[in-house]
Amino acid sequence: MSALDFEILNTDGHARTGSLLTVHGAIDTPAFMPVGTAATVKAMTPDAVAETGAQCILANTYHLMLRPGPERIAQLGGLHKFMNWPGPILTDSGGFQVWSLAELREMDEDGVEFKSHLDGALYRLSPERAVEIQGLLGADITMVLDECTPLEAGRDEVAKSMRLSMRWAERCKAAYEERPGHGLFGIVQGGVYRDLRAESAETLVGMGFDGYALGGLSVGEGQEEMFRVLDGTVPLLPAALPRYLMGVGKPADLLGAVKRGIDMFDCVLPTRSGRTGQAFVRGGRLNMRNARHKDDPGPLDEACDCPTCGNYSRAYLHHLVMAKEILGPMLLSWHNLHYYQDLMADLRRAVNEGALAAFEAAFRAEQKAGGDKG
Amino acid sequence: MSALDFEILNTDGHARTGSLLTVHGAIDTPAFMPVGTAATVKAMTPDAVAETGAQCILANTYHLMLRPGPERIAQLGGLHKFMNWPGPILTDSGGFQVWSLAELREMDEDGVEFKSHLDGALYRLSPERAVEIQGLLGADITMVLDECTPLEAGRDEVAKSMRLSMRWAERCKAAYEERPGHGLFGIVQGGVYRDLRAESAETLVGMGFDGYALGGLSVGEGQEEMFRVLDGTVPLLPAALPRYLMGVGKPADLLGAVKRGIDMFDCVLPTRSGRTGQAFVRGGRLNMRNARHKDDPGPLDEACDCPTCGNYSRAYLHHLVMAKEILGPMLLSWHNLHYYQDLMADLRRAVNEGALAAFEAAFRAEQKAGGDKG
Repeated sequence: MSALDFEILNTDGHARTGSLLTVHGAIDTPAFMPVGTAATVKAMTPDAVAETGAQCILANTYHLMLRPGPERIAQLGGLHKFMNWPGPILTDSGGFQVWSLAELREMDEDGVEFKSHLDGALYRLSPERAVEIQGLLGADITMVLDECTPLEAGRDEVAKSMRLSMRWAERCKAAYEERPGHGLFGIVQGGVYRDLRAESAETLVGMGFDGYALGGLSVGEGQEEMFRVLDGTVPLLPAALPRYLMGVGKPADLLGAVKRGIDMFDCVLPTRSGRTGQAFVRGGRLNMRNARHKDDPGPLDEACDCPTCGNYSRAYLHHLVMAKEILGPMLLSWHNLHYYQDLMADLRRAVNEGALAAFEAAFRAEQKAGGDKG
Repeated sequence: MSALDFEILNTDGHARTGSLLTVHGAIDTPAFMPVGTAATVKAMTPDAVAETGAQCILANTYHLMLRPGPERIAQLGGLHKFMNWPGPILTDSGGFQVWSLAELREMDEDGVEFKSHLDGALYRLSPERAVEIQGLLGADITMVLDECTPLEAGRDEVAKSMRLSMRWAERCKAAYEERPGHGLFGIVQGGVYRDLRAESAETLVGMGFDGYALGGLSVGEGQEEMFRVLDGTVPLLPAALPRYLMGVGKPADLLGAVKRGIDMFDCVLPTRSGRTGQAFVRGGRLNMRNARHKDDPGPLDEACDCPTCGNYSRAYLHHLVMAKEILGPMLLSWHNLHYYQDLMADLRRAVNEGALAAFEAAFRAEQKAGGDKG
């Protein structure tokens, strides 16, 4: 029994538009979710996040488990209230960060023990605890705990890891059903192996989730390989339920994945790029440290109606980045998130009008014309 | 011939309220000007600065001279446009920063040669160049170049330095009159020596400026000594013109200086404190790193109606500061500037109602009751 309600509005090939209704509001899909790792979308106020058009954000179980702690957030009224974000929140399960940030101590059938990257303290994460934490946070969408297999792993290792993740998914579902949240997504694993992905998808669909994610992609396998996995896997997922490609990606990745039937995305790229002086614009990416912006009175992107482009020149943004002023990351993150939301709105419009192929052609031409923006 | 128009509205003892009209809008006095050192009030959008109630900001000639350069800003349409601040801007002359930040190379009657703290490049600042730079920036209020005497300097050194500053003030006035801006303020120097302050004030008043500042205070001499200098100097300045106490200060400093007839202030304290986890609240200052805030669901200040206090708990702000999230400095700077503007509004109200003594008594009682807020 899910509190989520997903309605498909239009399709164009494999692509579709929809509306995912949560108890904290609707999400127009395909949707891009800004990442609010430690209960804040970095360098952005929640008002600014909402202004970009974002409807749902992602928060990280791993970071919040370590600091300030899920029990504390629950006692303070839940994550929505804590961080002043009234809209939907999807929480990841913590798995990916345990493998990428923490010092792994012990990993067995039951779960994983690790040392906090903050202070070395020992923590334990299990399928049951991952679901419990996300319940304490008040997640609108809870993710199952999965093991993340390194890209260099061989087929046997990937198979073994995927099957462990499937057993963990089952335990997550059981734990979730004892104390139901607002919605639970399974995560398809299996690396770049089509048959393993198929086995994973079928196993999860057999259990029954409110939505299905694809994990372990955009980890270095390349866009072509990622699209190949999507081509093989997406058709195995229930058409009526939302599909989420985790941790992706660049604008061209989003376009290609939408075309293959993906409904949801998250990625740190727009905010992280904003903090390192990079700006996404129609036709490419700008490095605002480049001296060629020094005297440029024009906006980042003539076609953008975000507050950064409406009020500030490239010359000023270059100055802020060079002077290491906090307002630089603030204004660039704002613009980049706005760019991503504009792209998603354009994709939804294209699908609704049955014009995704034309949109893709125009997008590619624009990227080509943009060249190296510098 | 000044573009400034100063009207005194009410007095209460030596204190007064007024309205300083500039070509970019009115400033209600007594006024506190947030510091926008490098063409940005750190960690704040201009919209947020305006929301706090600030009407005029300060920008630093020294920093903007080095980067991005005043000629560049002029070519980009001036500082107001560059930084998207449509209200009045006061620019300091660069003197204080040359002495505190740069490596001094040579200093003579003509001016000062120094090495940039950014890249070691050589620059020259003279009275004429200081006025020229502020004109290029488009300052609403231009400050004369003065020499800053260290606190430990003896009487003879202070006298010599003050007299050099007076000769520079005269050259600034001559340069300004050749290419008039919107208003020029003189700066009274003379350290803690009453007769030297008097000589400086009389010299400047003889030249005739649009307003008078007191420089070289709040540099370690202590509040009592500073107030003693104000008591001796302010009565020597024209009652009909604005009086500006540079680089001051703590809330109690502002109250005491308003009581002594000061109309304008600037200080980095609210923004710098915000970036180091300090919050000004009625009754004292909070260190948001303190673990006692960890579980506190209440706002920084119950009596504050800023967006930080309206939307975020002390527990969340503690979390942001501990996690070194950019949103921490953003929300704390916003609150601190709001606190300062509320204080100025309270002071204006008290003066208008002839109730400054009662306000001071209540303020002192509140500070006493606050004790060490921790």
